[in-house]
Order: sequence, then C-alpha cells, then structure tokens
Amino acid sequence: MAQVPTTASPPNLQELLSRRASDLPAPRIGDPRKSAELISFFAGFPDPGSLPADEVAAATVRALAKDGQWALQYGNGTGYPGLVDVLLAKLKRDQGIEAGRENVLITAGGSQAMGLVLDAFVDWGDTVITEAPTWMGAVRAFANVGAKPVAIPVDDEGTDTDALERELGRLRDEGIQPKLIYVISNFQNPSGISTSLARRQRIIALARQYGTLVLEDDAYSDLRYSGERIPPLYALDEGGSTMYLGTFSKIMGAGMRLGWLIADPEIIKRLAVLKIDGGTNVFGSHVAAEWLPEHLDAHVARLKAIYQRRRDLMLQALERHMPEGTTWTRPDGGFFIWVTFAEGIDTTRMLPQARERGVEFLPGPTCYVDGRGQNQLRLSFSFAADEQIEPGIRIIGEIAKGELLEAGRGSRGGSRSTRSS
Amino acid sequence: MAQVPTTASPPNLQELLSRRASDLPAPRIGDPRKSAELISFFAGFPDPGSLPADEVAAATVRALAKDGQWALQYGNGTGYPGLVDVLLAKLKRDQGIEAGRENVLITAGGSQAMGLVLDAFVDWGDTVITEAPTWMGAVRAFANVGAKPVAIPVDDEGTDTDALERELGRLRDEGIQPKLIYVISNFQNPSGISTSLARRQRIIALARQYGTLVLEDDAYSDLRYSGERIPPLYALDEGGSTMYLGTFSKIMGAGMRLGWLIADPEIIKRLAVLKIDGGTNVFGSHVAAEWLPEHLDAHVARLKAIYQRRRDLMLQALERHMPEGTTWTRPDGGFFIWVTFAEGIDTTRMLPQARERGVEFLPGPTCYVDGRGQNQLRLSFSFAADEQIEPGIRIIGEIAKGELLEAGRGSRGGSRSTRSS
Repeated sequence: MAQVPTTASPPNLQELLSRRASDLPAPRIGDPRKSAELISFFAGFPDPGSLPADEVAAATVRALAKDGQWALQYGNGTGYPGLVDVLLAKLKRDQGIEAGRENVLITAGGSQAMGLVLDAFVDWGDTVITEAPTWMGAVRAFANVGAKPVAIPVDDEGTDTDALERELGRLRDEGIQPKLIYVISNFQNPSGISTSLARRQRIIALARQYGTLVLEDDAYSDLRYSGERIPPLYALDEGGSTMYLGTFSKIMGAGMRLGWLIADPEIIKRLAVLKIDGGTNVFGSHVAAEWLPEHLDAHVARLKAIYQRRRDLMLQALERHMPEGTTWTRPDGGFFIWVTFAEGIDTTRMLPQARERGVEFLPGPTCYVDGRGQNQLRLSFSFAADEQIEPGIRIIGEIAKGELLEAGRGSRGGSRSTRSS
Repeated sequence: MAQVPTTASPPNLQELLSRRASDLPAPRIGDPRKSAELISFFAGFPDPGSLPADEVAAATVRALAKDGQWALQYGNGTGYPGLVDVLLAKLKRDQGIEAGRENVLITAGGSQAMGLVLDAFVDWGDTVITEAPTWMGAVRAFANVGAKPVAIPVDDEGTDTDALERELGRLRDEGIQPKLIYVISNFQNPSGISTSLARRQRIIALARQYGTLVLEDDAYSDLRYSGERIPPLYALDEGGSTMYLGTFSKIMGAGMRLGWLIADPEIIKRLAVLKIDGGTNVFGSHVAAEWLPEHLDAHVARLKAIYQRRRDLMLQALERHMPEGTTWTRPDGGFFIWVTFAEGIDTTRMLPQARERGVEFLPGPTCYVDGRGQNQLRLSFSFAADEQIEPGIRIIGEIAKGELLEAGRGSRGGSRSTRSS
C-alpha cells in the first residue's frame, strides 16, 4: 500500500508521530459517490435506492417535536436510553439476546465499537486471533493499534475450530495470552459463510478454556435470504466472555453512523470512560429511536427481497462467466460472495483493468492480515443495480480468462462451484 | 475518583485489559437531563431553550429531499464535502482562517478530534504540555493514552509563556521531546480567560523553536460578548505547527456531535486512517450543511444575547453573595466563570452540600492534571435559567461562608474581585 509521503510541512513531524501514526497507508477513498460512477461490487454499501429518506425525514420531524430540546443537547455517555431500549427489544426478539441497559454502548457504527474494544484490550504488540479471510476494516484496526493477528482459516462451516484450538495451544506453550478472538458469525465478510452452531459452541468453550474473550461481529444477521437462523455466540455464551458488535448501517442507513456493543457491564463501564466523544450522535439516535419501531420490519423485508434477488443474479452470472477452475461461495445472507480463481491469477493486477472497463471489486489480499488471497476477490451484490450485475460479472470473467491465457492455462469452458456456504 | 470494581464477570478480565483500560475512574454521569433537575452550573451544556429544533427539522426535510440517497449512505472518510465547504467559508469569514478541504477532518465533536490527535502523537508515557487549569475532558483524554502532562499556569493574559519557556527548556535539558502544547485560546475552559495576541505569537515561536506542535482548542470563539476578537493561533502560525480544533456543539446543537480539526494535510491524512468509524455522522453532516448558511448568524446572535445576560447576572450575584477574599474571572465570552476562594476551602467537600440544596458546580481539582484547585470551582452560566442564577449563587456563597466559619476565618462582608480577564 502507498505510504504517506514523509516530507511534511510542520518541522519535526516524523519525530513527533506515535507508533500508531508513523507507518500508515494512504487514506482509502471512502466515497460511495465515486463507486456509483462504476458498476461497483467493491464495498459493503447498502442499496442507494432503498434508503428510507422520506421515512427518516418524517421521523426527524416527530422526534424533534417531541424531544428537540434533548435531541440537540449533549447525551448520555453510553447512548440515548430511548434508542437503547428499542435496540434491546429488537435484539431479544430477533437475535434471542437477553441484555439490559448496563450491557449496551451505542457507538458510531460497529467500527467505533471495534476501535474501543481494541483500545481497551490491546497494548502494542499484543496478540489477537482473527479469521482468514476477514473484514478489511478489522485488518486496518488491528494494524492501527499494533496488534499481532493470528489467522484462523474459514472453511464451509466457518471458523476452523481445530485450527483455532491448535493455535491457542501453541500460543499457550509460547506463554502468549491472546486478548480476543474476532469472529464474524453470520454471512462473514468477505466469505459470505456462516459459522455453524457446533463451531460457535466450540469457540465459546475454547475462549473459556484459554481465558480469552470473543468479539462477535454480527452486522448482517437480519439479512438472511435462505437457511435457518443460528443463535449468536453472545446468546450461547453463559460465561460472559463474548462481546457482541452490531450496526444499524445495513438495516436502516449507514449514514446514521449508529452501531452498538453488547457486553459484560464491567467492560461497558470501561469503554464508556475511554469513549470521550460526548455521547454518540444524539440527534441521529433520537431519529432512529423514532423510526425503528414503526419501520424496521417492513424495511428489512424490502431489503431482503432486493438483496436476495441480486445474490441470485450474481450467482447465475458467475456460473455463466467465470473461467473453469473458479470457485465461489453461495451465501445464505449478507452482501458478499467470495471468489477463488485458479492459482497464478492476481486479482490486485486485475482491478485496474476492471476499473478501466467500468467495474470494481475488492482484491483478496485486503482481507487477510498476511497479504494472502492473491487469487481471490470479494464481490458485494448490495450496491450495484440489478441490471449491472450480469455485465459486470461478465467483464470480470473476461479479464480473468485473459489472465489465465497469459498464464498459459486458459480455458473458455464454464465453471462448477465446489464450495458453498 | 471511584475505581471500577475489579470483580468482573468474564474470567481473567483484569489480565486481558490494556494499560489504557486497567485503571479508570467510574464513568461520569453525562446526562444533561439529570442536571436539569437542579440549578446547574456544572457543565458546558448549551441553553436548552435555545436549541433550534424547528429549524433543524425543516433543514432535515430539505437535506433528505435533495440528497437523501447520500445522506443515509456511508460517507467520505474526512467528512461530507458539503459541510466541509460551509465550514471553510465560515472559518475564513469569522476566524480569519485560510484553509482548504485537504486541511479538514470532520469529527464527532471536538473531543473526538482531540482523541485522534493524541492517538497520532502520544505513545504511552510521552509528555504533553497543557494549561493549568484546563478542560476536564482533556485531563481524562491525557490519562486515557498515558500522556504525562506538564502544567503551565494560566494568568490574566492566558498561558504564562515565561513558564512555558522554562518548562520547554527544562524538558530539553532532560532529553524529553514534548509532543504538543494544548491551548484553549478564547474564554478558556474553565478559567474564562483569553490568551493575549502577544502570548499567542510567543507560543507559536516557542513551539517552533522547540520542535513541537500546538493543539489549539477554540470551541467558544463565536460567543464573544465584549472586547476585541483576537486571531486564533492557527491563523497566526505560518509554520504549519498548529492544529485547530472546533465544534458546532455550542453554536448549533451539541446533539449533532459535529466538530472538526484543521491541520496540515500530512496530519489530516494520518488521522483519517486512524479514524475507522466509517465517516462522521453523515446524516447530521448533511443536515448541518443545510442549516448553517441560512441560520448560523441569527442563531449565534440569539445565543450571545442569552449568554451575555447570564454572565452579567452571575457576575452581579457573585458580587452580592461571595465571602470576602473570594476572587473570580470576568470572561469576555464563552460559558465559564472561575472562582477562587480563600485557602482552606474545599470545593469538592462543598459539592454534596450544594446538591442537597439543589445546586451544582464543577469542583476545581477536576480541571487540573495534578489535583490542584481544591479551593476553586468552575461556574457555567450557559445552562441554568436566568432566574435560577441569583438563588444558585446565593446558596454557593452561603455554603462557602459556612466552610470559612468552620475554618475559623469567617466573614459576612461583601467581596471585591481582584482578578479579571
């Protein structure tokens, strides 16, 4: 990744920077408007057309008429209680999570919750355990705090718990206490795979046995299009070792920047002291608390119809256009399909060719803490319009076939997926 | 300060915590609704009645009609460009700050900007320079990251730059590089004092000479009720050593949780990578960008009338009710008056008595990095209603006189302030 130039205007800047800031990549262009200029399978952006602007406008008018004096004031450090209560009812009904106000911290999206957890548990050089592949934001967050990530492979049933046990044992032999195990339990980002119930129970038991914590990231569980719901690790864990991270970004609007952490009160208390930003988005919290009870269910139903259709369109297009030897996952929900090409293909090299032809995707190495995944890529089916999916996948397939021809093992044949979730 | 109990539910929690989280005070009750039950001079909360709920509701409807698809989507990592441009125009007009988009990071209030700056420059045990007294949030933020604060006294002209130069020299002799000098330039929190132009120029020169940075906190500069505007350090600094922190909390609504950092692009680039929360409050940023051009000036004019009146009411009440030997500041703006009692008075001991009688204030020691200020307190005149101010100050005066009598040097006489800003 390109480094920030080291010639800075303030004298002595290099000498003043902390370890966190001294070796950083250039900022990613994070603007969805840029992606909208392409057929974009790049990011986990919600479908633009589905965002409930009119409902949110009406909810804002109501929320401010009711309680404007407090909606525009500083807030409670752990979050607006009105939103906390709506969230607790939703988590109990939909996720089977029993929790009280003392277990909740409202955060600026799930990503701020993750940042706070890392601040609270990771000193520079500490070890954390994570899935491989995993969310690129987690890869960045671990690097920011100097965490040493140990990667556990994800297979068709999710986190490979045999590998997890081996690594926990190895670390113990080396006298290393891993601080937490980071697991994306449903429709994992980027693989689309959900960790099975048996695996979830084993992860909890292993965390307990090895005296570490679990950070469960469950950003997508409401967006299931097929298969049976599996209880979150948080609901299965009777030992209080699991922290549960979620967000309204995918089910209401990412622009609200509202997420949460559910955890033991002793952990929440500490995070609330480390979180010095004056209370998360008080205005947006009042609006969300007004919008959610009336609109969440109908909105999620709309979203599921849209995303299921796009998932199916993308799976069909992959069948049609991917070169032989290519495999991909068949997610039961979420936003992502994970594609694995034959060895020798370099998806990072493919990206500029794709962008030149008006298509973008996420190259695999961004999803690994150790730069693996050269022949893999993540496709998001949430953002591009229905009619863009087939042409976009066709272009990616053509570029891949060209790469294979160059690599001298080309083929025009169809493909068969050998991997599914 | 009370410590979080160390018997935590998850096994092994104490062993897993980072340095940042292992020794924290209990979370502060940060809920303004609680303060509203008292005559509260405690916090820097805006006047509840002044918050522009109707205007913000109307602006939200307009913003979402115009651009709802993007207001509810993930945002640009450095902030919504529409808000950045409005902010740049305002800073140029009102603060004389010349900056471009590349100098701006939109943050969750000024406090998140401070947290990011500390993450980017402070490793555990690093030295920072700060005013004494200073903002209690800064005291907390320094402790969270393990910064070693060196305190520079504030006198009637602001930061004592002779003391600053002595400390910079001493640190250099000891081979210690301070990472930054934290200065609240206008109507300082908590003293109410503004640093003079000559002092501002000397701070910049000293920062340059000693190869460190300045973090200027200017949350209150638009709320000036008397005296001449003084240019911010950022506008005076031609060397790029100053970072300028501000907020919409005091001039629009704290509930928006919108603030900013203006700094050299090399610094902004790094902070944008460390800031992993998916873009600051995109929804609120679109609303603010819609509200500000039409309403900011009239709203600030309304606020100045309210707060100037309350400042004057409080100064009159202090003259009337404070025991002899008490001094206080006369701020030209902002929210705060800083009261110094005769030696021997303990404002921390006074607080429960005051709360019992329905009044609250901020005890002095919370505003020092070394627990000084036992005989001092901060009064905020922003939140309590006009008619509450005189009775509230009377009660504080009565409690103070009682404490003095106990200390055997009581007096019923009036007072003369010997200190002013």
